[in-house]
Amino acid sequence: MAHASHRTATTGLDPETRAAVLVEAIPYIRRFAGQIVVVKYGGNALAGSKAATTPEQGQVRGSDVEEALARFAEDVVLMVSMGLRPVVVHGGGPQIGALMERLGKTPQFVDGLRVTDAETLDIARMVLVGKVNREIVSAINLHAPLAVGLSGEDAGFITAAEHDPALGFVGDVVAVDPALVVRLAGEGLVPVIATIGADESGQAYNINADTVAGAVAEALSAEKLIFLTDVAGVRSRREDPDSLVARLDAKSLDDLVANGAVGEGMIPKVQACSHAVRNGVGSAHVLDGRLPHVLLLELLSDEGIGTMVTAS
Amino acid sequence: MAHASHRTATTGLDPETRAAVLVEAIPYIRRFAGQIVVVKYGGNALAGSKAATTPEQGQVRGSDVEEALARFAEDVVLMVSMGLRPVVVHGGGPQIGALMERLGKTPQFVDGLRVTDAETLDIARMVLVGKVNREIVSAINLHAPLAVGLSGEDAGFITAAEHDPALGFVGDVVAVDPALVVRLAGEGLVPVIATIGADESGQAYNINADTVAGAVAEALSAEKLIFLTDVAGVRSRREDPDSLVARLDAKSLDDLVANGAVGEGMIPKVQACSHAVRNGVGSAHVLDGRLPHVLLLELLSDEGIGTMVTAS
Amino acid sequence: MAHASHRTATTGLDPETRAAVLVEAIPYIRRFAGQIVVVKYGGNALAGSKAATTPEQGQVRGSDVEEALARFAEDVVLMVSMGLRPVVVHGGGPQIGALMERLGKTPQFVDGLRVTDAETLDIARMVLVGKVNREIVSAINLHAPLAVGLSGEDAGFITAAEHDPALGFVGDVVAVDPALVVRLAGEGLVPVIATIGADESGQAYNINADTVAGAVAEALSAEKLIFLTDVAGVRSRREDPDSLVARLDAKSLDDLVANGAVGEGMIPKVQACSHAVRNGVGSAHVLDGRLPHVLLLELLSDEGIGTMVTAS
Amino acid sequence: MAHASHRTATTGLDPETRAAVLVEAIPYIRRFAGQIVVVKYGGNALAGSKAATTPEQGQVRGSDVEEALARFAEDVVLMVSMGLRPVVVHGGGPQIGALMERLGKTPQFVDGLRVTDAETLDIARMVLVGKVNREIVSAINLHAPLAVGLSGEDAGFITAAEHDPALGFVGDVVAVDPALVVRLAGEGLVPVIATIGADESGQAYNINADTVAGAVAEALSAEKLIFLTDVAGVRSRREDPDSLVARLDAKSLDDLVANGAVGEGMIPKVQACSHAVRNGVGSAHVLDGRLPHVLLLELLSDEGIGTMVTAS
Amino acid sequence: MAHASHRTATTGLDPETRAAVLVEAIPYIRRFAGQIVVVKYGGNALAGSKAATTPEQGQVRGSDVEEALARFAEDVVLMVSMGLRPVVVHGGGPQIGALMERLGKTPQFVDGLRVTDAETLDIARMVLVGKVNREIVSAINLHAPLAVGLSGEDAGFITAAEHDPALGFVGDVVAVDPALVVRLAGEGLVPVIATIGADESGQAYNINADTVAGAVAEALSAEKLIFLTDVAGVRSRREDPDSLVARLDAKSLDDLVANGAVGEGMIPKVQACSHAVRNGVGSAHVLDGRLPHVLLLELLSDEGIGTMVTAS
Amino acid sequence: MAHASHRTATTGLDPETRAAVLVEAIPYIRRFAGQIVVVKYGGNALAGSKAATTPEQGQVRGSDVEEALARFAEDVVLMVSMGLRPVVVHGGGPQIGALMERLGKTPQFVDGLRVTDAETLDIARMVLVGKVNREIVSAINLHAPLAVGLSGEDAGFITAAEHDPALGFVGDVVAVDPALVVRLAGEGLVPVIATIGADESGQAYNINADTVAGAVAEALSAEKLIFLTDVAGVRSRREDPDSLVARLDAKSLDDLVANGAVGEGMIPKVQACSHAVRNGVGSAHVLDGRLPHVLLLELLSDEGIGTMVTAS
Repeated sequence: MAHASHRTATTGLDPETRAAVLVEAIPYIRRFAGQIVVVKYGGNALAGSKAATTPEQGQVRGSDVEEALARFAEDVVLMVSMGLRPVVVHGGGPQIGALMERLGKTPQFVDGLRVTDAETLDIARMVLVGKVNREIVSAINLHAPLAVGLSGEDAGFITAAEHDPALGFVGDVVAVDPALVVRLAGEGLVPVIATIGADESGQAYNINADTVAGAVAEALSAEKLIFLTDVAGVRSRREDPDSLVARLDAKSLDDLVANGAVGEGMIPKVQACSHAVRNGVGSAHVLDGRLPHVLLLELLSDEGIGTMVTAS
Repeated sequence: MAHASHRTATTGLDPETRAAVLVEAIPYIRRFAGQIVVVKYGGNALAGSKAATTPEQGQVRGSDVEEALARFAEDVVLMVSMGLRPVVVHGGGPQIGALMERLGKTPQFVDGLRVTDAETLDIARMVLVGKVNREIVSAINLHAPLAVGLSGEDAGFITAAEHDPALGFVGDVVAVDPALVVRLAGEGLVPVIATIGADESGQAYNINADTVAGAVAEALSAEKLIFLTDVAGVRSRREDPDSLVARLDAKSLDDLVANGAVGEGMIPKVQACSHAVRNGVGSAHVLDGRLPHVLLLELLSDEGIGTMVTAS
Repeated sequence: MAHASHRTATTGLDPETRAAVLVEAIPYIRRFAGQIVVVKYGGNALAGSKAATTPEQGQVRGSDVEEALARFAEDVVLMVSMGLRPVVVHGGGPQIGALMERLGKTPQFVDGLRVTDAETLDIARMVLVGKVNREIVSAINLHAPLAVGLSGEDAGFITAAEHDPALGFVGDVVAVDPALVVRLAGEGLVPVIATIGADESGQAYNINADTVAGAVAEALSAEKLIFLTDVAGVRSRREDPDSLVARLDAKSLDDLVANGAVGEGMIPKVQACSHAVRNGVGSAHVLDGRLPHVLLLELLSDEGIGTMVTAS
Repeated sequence: MAHASHRTATTGLDPETRAAVLVEAIPYIRRFAGQIVVVKYGGNALAGSKAATTPEQGQVRGSDVEEALARFAEDVVLMVSMGLRPVVVHGGGPQIGALMERLGKTPQFVDGLRVTDAETLDIARMVLVGKVNREIVSAINLHAPLAVGLSGEDAGFITAAEHDPALGFVGDVVAVDPALVVRLAGEGLVPVIATIGADESGQAYNINADTVAGAVAEALSAEKLIFLTDVAGVRSRREDPDSLVARLDAKSLDDLVANGAVGEGMIPKVQACSHAVRNGVGSAHVLDGRLPHVLLLELLSDEGIGTMVTAS
Repeated sequence: MAHASHRTATTGLDPETRAAVLVEAIPYIRRFAGQIVVVKYGGNALAGSKAATTPEQGQVRGSDVEEALARFAEDVVLMVSMGLRPVVVHGGGPQIGALMERLGKTPQFVDGLRVTDAETLDIARMVLVGKVNREIVSAINLHAPLAVGLSGEDAGFITAAEHDPALGFVGDVVAVDPALVVRLAGEGLVPVIATIGADESGQAYNINADTVAGAVAEALSAEKLIFLTDVAGVRSRREDPDSLVARLDAKSLDDLVANGAVGEGMIPKVQACSHAVRNGVGSAHVLDGRLPHVLLLELLSDEGIGTMVTAS
Repeated sequence: MAHASHRTATTGLDPETRAAVLVEAIPYIRRFAGQIVVVKYGGNALAGSKAATTPEQGQVRGSDVEEALARFAEDVVLMVSMGLRPVVVHGGGPQIGALMERLGKTPQFVDGLRVTDAETLDIARMVLVGKVNREIVSAINLHAPLAVGLSGEDAGFITAAEHDPALGFVGDVVAVDPALVVRLAGEGLVPVIATIGADESGQAYNINADTVAGAVAEALSAEKLIFLTDVAGVRSRREDPDSLVARLDAKSLDDLVANGAVGEGMIPKVQACSHAVRNGVGSAHVLDGRLPHVLLLELLSDEGIGTMVTAS
């Protein structure tokens, strides 16, 4: 395990300060030992990544994106080192769109949801399971061979149903069978989940990744559900960066949605937060994934980072 | 579990005959209880299947291909019912080629091996992990939710190395870590393995599926390694259908290869058979996958089917 | 394990038919895995067997009786191979009578029950435990050393009480302690039970074997209770062979008894069936033990054989 | 558990003496915890018992014999209470002879061994398994339901072979499979073993009980092998009661046999002792079974009783 | 283990009597197997022991006291040999007083309770944990290395609270956490408990040993709570030695206290007895600790010794 | 768990630096999970603590000493939180001397070792087991009820032998039985060990605490042996503070002792270090116990603190 790049930051730090950080962190390590933490890693975070669709981009990759994924992967492995059981859920909208375009299909959206015919579903599945999932698995396994890619179709993990006939193969989560994921996480492995589900006839569906993350956290009775986003957290006034809310309960969060304070892109996330904490998840968090090691900081310090949602 | 379509065959069968089949089969059930059987399911067998690449073919599927996959899936689930632990390995050459063509890439081959640049690897991974693997998982889970798709990258399952710089990202198997697959199979699940591996730097490689099947069987100390093909078995004279060999040892098989009796497409398979039985696999088999329920018949009857290879 | 004698029946059977029988059978194997099946093997079935009482018969044995016992024993071992847990209960009326006669005692019956003085009890116990039980154990162990002979006196298995002072040491079942039999069956052994019980003072009693079979099935929460008899099943009209009932519930069976449709010899069996399914046994069966491998056919095919009784 | 009849002996005993007996005994209890003790209980000890063969004796029983069996049974149950694992082996020569006579057969002996034709074997098996074994099981279970009757045929426990064609079905011990007996004894049950064995063809044989006791003790790696006889122990001069040997090694015992000091009836016992201690049994003992609670006294006091044989 | 000193008592004892003692004792061994017995060993019993406080007494020790402790220790080890789980609780009032005097402090008592300032507590803790506890542990470990000294402060075993501000650091038992003691006793070790407890601020308190013994017995659901004293038991008339009560229930015992029949020194003991049997302890006993092996005699004979208290 | 006093140190620390400390620390947490660390806590460190011997000091305590013990206790509990298994060994020379003086005894030393007559041993045992041990246990249990005080006499933990007749009851370590300590540490408890041992006759001895710490670390196959002292570490030139050695092997350490570079008081410690790493202990450390949280800093950072000794 090479952490060389981060070492310089601690050089010259006085022992007293260093000890203070550890004394603050260790009790949380005990408290979270063996707990499941579901982390939603956004497709956008990978959107600049190596695209299969443009040959000339093949070997080029934004160093920011690579760096962010590498740090996320390192945090996930460090979480396992501490005795936590992280479970990663991801989407991949931009990457699906890119391949569709290369294949000459024009993406269509209704109310923000992608119209998904049989071919689009085939493409979505290839991209989510065969590309985005692989990149996350690969990044984690570079640190320690712990990541196992899964789709909701594996071992009947996610049962889905059609959301709306007009949208085609876009699904809702009907049920989550936690057995396989609990087992893998319990053995110190890291399930990385692509958000495809199937109904009882075997028909596959593409499902919103935020919704899946929440449903999985509930089914696993996770201690935490964490959304890594590109904003600092939830605001009480949509346009006011100073209105960041550090901590609130599900009821207050619902009120913010009703008031229109929450922006559209954020709505599936905050709804998943609100639903999850009302159904047994310890707390839900919206964090800025661009902040280095934001997962560790959230887990191991007294002061909160981003927005924390609790049941009451 | 509905087996209605096959019921008619037994109607009117006299009890004595029916009992004789069972009396012959049951001792094998006991003998194979808990044993691992690795089955290589050929990409060709799925080659006529729903292609993501041609929109108009999207909903059309050769009923023969569908029927063959459905019967294979049923056999796999029945193997689990009997207490066996099947592990499926698959390739997907024709499907990779189809998507390459749709994306405007021309496949190139050197000595029968696909030249694989970064983009081709990306395509191969999407097709194998995100399409072919999904179709097999889905077909099995329609009978019982037991299949779990895996790639050699998951949890460090298959460590690979570059085969030849001229070929790009074509890999050889360096090591197989059986832990995850043994665990899943031990819990009654069916690992379905796409043949992508990674080296220690995290670089992925596409690997020949016949070779992977053999290496996996060896690492798992499988009782049997079974290749489902489209021929009746190994012949002692290449062009003579009557020269089918029912049973032979590894040495004799090597001789047939040296004599040129084995056709080119078959060579990786018979080499994998020969290597596997010399390294702890109980027996290796080349069967005609087009024969309905050929897996059950091989496993549960005294007379062999196809060709069986043993160590000596 | 040699099954050579039965092999010929499958020679020349086409693969499709053979596969159909297996596909039909395997799901039952899974369903019955680990389940207890109590089989009552009738004393009559052994009645022609080697009698201790007539020297000149000593080495002679009806080949039919031997053959029936051998096939029964083979089925029992095959049931274990499939993961079932068979428990055998047997009587031995004819054999008791034969030894009594040789010792100069005249059997006396009141309402079909044998008047049992102390000496008769001693003879019954010797014959049941020391002769009939031994023959069944021996026949099974010829295939695999799995059978363990037990009497209801062992480890307090069956607690009995006097049925009627006028009959002497004829007992009713008061309680069954399933611990020992569950343990032996759970280890893959086959308990073979002679129907002697004891009361708390240690006094032994001879008990009707049909009744014991039913009580044992209830105490073990058996999946099935099977009576092997010399008739095809239960009839709705006593004298009409065409009135065989394939399946009925306990209430209907009680009605047939009330109507006089059930012959006297069959009454203890059908009453045991009716009582057992009302007390937790999955189903009860009356089969023709003369039909080869009738146990396998009943267990492993969709169409019923003989008569099946269910709770409702 | 009622021990009332023995209580009077302790009334008025001063506490100091009572405590001294306990202080002496308890360390042995710890030392023997979980150890297997094989006890051969002689057929002679039961020879006066209720005979099935003579009606008028049916209800009469020598109170001495009954009392001796009852005290033996009590000791066996007390051994279990202390954490020991007793295993009982018994013969039954006199009882076999009695039934043969009632059935009009004349026992024949060659060199002290009973000529055993098929009918005699049938009689021997009925008497040993169905009568003598039952009486011992019944006597033990009157105190606590722990005894389980077994024959060497059960679960392939004792494999036998013909001793001498001239003697018919008289067998030697070829092998003992300890699994079943170890399991039963390990669960706190008391196996009571009738000395019938079978060869691989299923043919049963009658075997000398002293020999079986020794072979069973060896196969079980017993801590002790105890022969309950009607003499005080082994003498160094056959006719001199004062020449009782308290303790000797296997070599010295062999010398006594060679010198003619050991009487004929005792020879199989002392040979079994000598063989057993040379093959892993801790010690072998010849005790006077007529002495009340001789088993407890041997096990729980510093001064030996009878004759103890050790390896060296 | 040397018991030589007690052996002479059994020499010459006739076997019948010896057997009778054993037959009476063994059923109790089974009945008590695995049960916890809490024994309060009085500080007075050790009061004449080697005192740290007077140099000239340093090497002198009353042989009676030494002998009594040695026999107590032997009994405790024998209890473990029998499968019991003894737990010892002790006080040490006289020894505390002796050290206080040597250090120039004058003990003060209010209502029989020692006024305990900070220095007195320090002295009490040193004497109880560092001297009396060590002597008992050492005496037991001379027989077998089983004793482990504990104080109520270890692993939060006993939570205490101030009894009365006027008395200083004299405590009441608030809670007992049985986990550590149950674990040690379950592994065959003998916890020896000094009666210091602590409150949540970490402040230690000295607690009455009789009260602790009762509270520990309740928390452990002990089978027996035994007070070893220097009287024969509880009397119904304080001054009448013939009024010893062999057995009574908690209600009757409370009445004796109310009637003034119980002497002052005995009151904490009988109140602990009465409370314990009402809270799940099987029985409580007041025995004369001066009687050799009184623990064994109480546990292993039909006739009671001393006074036994039961719930009803 | 209140860590409030240390929180201020982290206020205002930038997230990047905080994350860097954690990223550096976490891999060590994983590496040390389940490992045993033996920590020698010096008697000097407690020497200013509340003395039982001077009444007027009773309630006074140097705040430095209290603060140091409190921080040590917090570190021990944090080590348990991280999954480590700390074992504490302590001495108490100054406290023994203080009580001896109050009791009018003049301590005598030969070659730095205390001449120990029977009374002195009694005093040493009271002080070590009943006072110093209690203070450490109490300080730890204030954070979490995990500490269990032990002496080498408990359960035969440390077997000792006389060092030199001229010194009286001063002992050497002959053997350490790790069973009890391993068990307690394995259950997440913290054994705190007073360095009294006993020989086979039960005679107690006072043993040098540095030697005991080393012997215990070896017997437990500890990952680390840590001496908390009042110096910064080992120097290569006795009087030169700049000659601190950060890391050396056992051979080099022996050379420093031979060269006279190591001061007398340090010799038992460095000899214990050298012996321990040659006998299976991962590494040994001499740290300055006055540095706050020095245990955490040593365990969880890349740069060493104090002196680390390894086998080679």
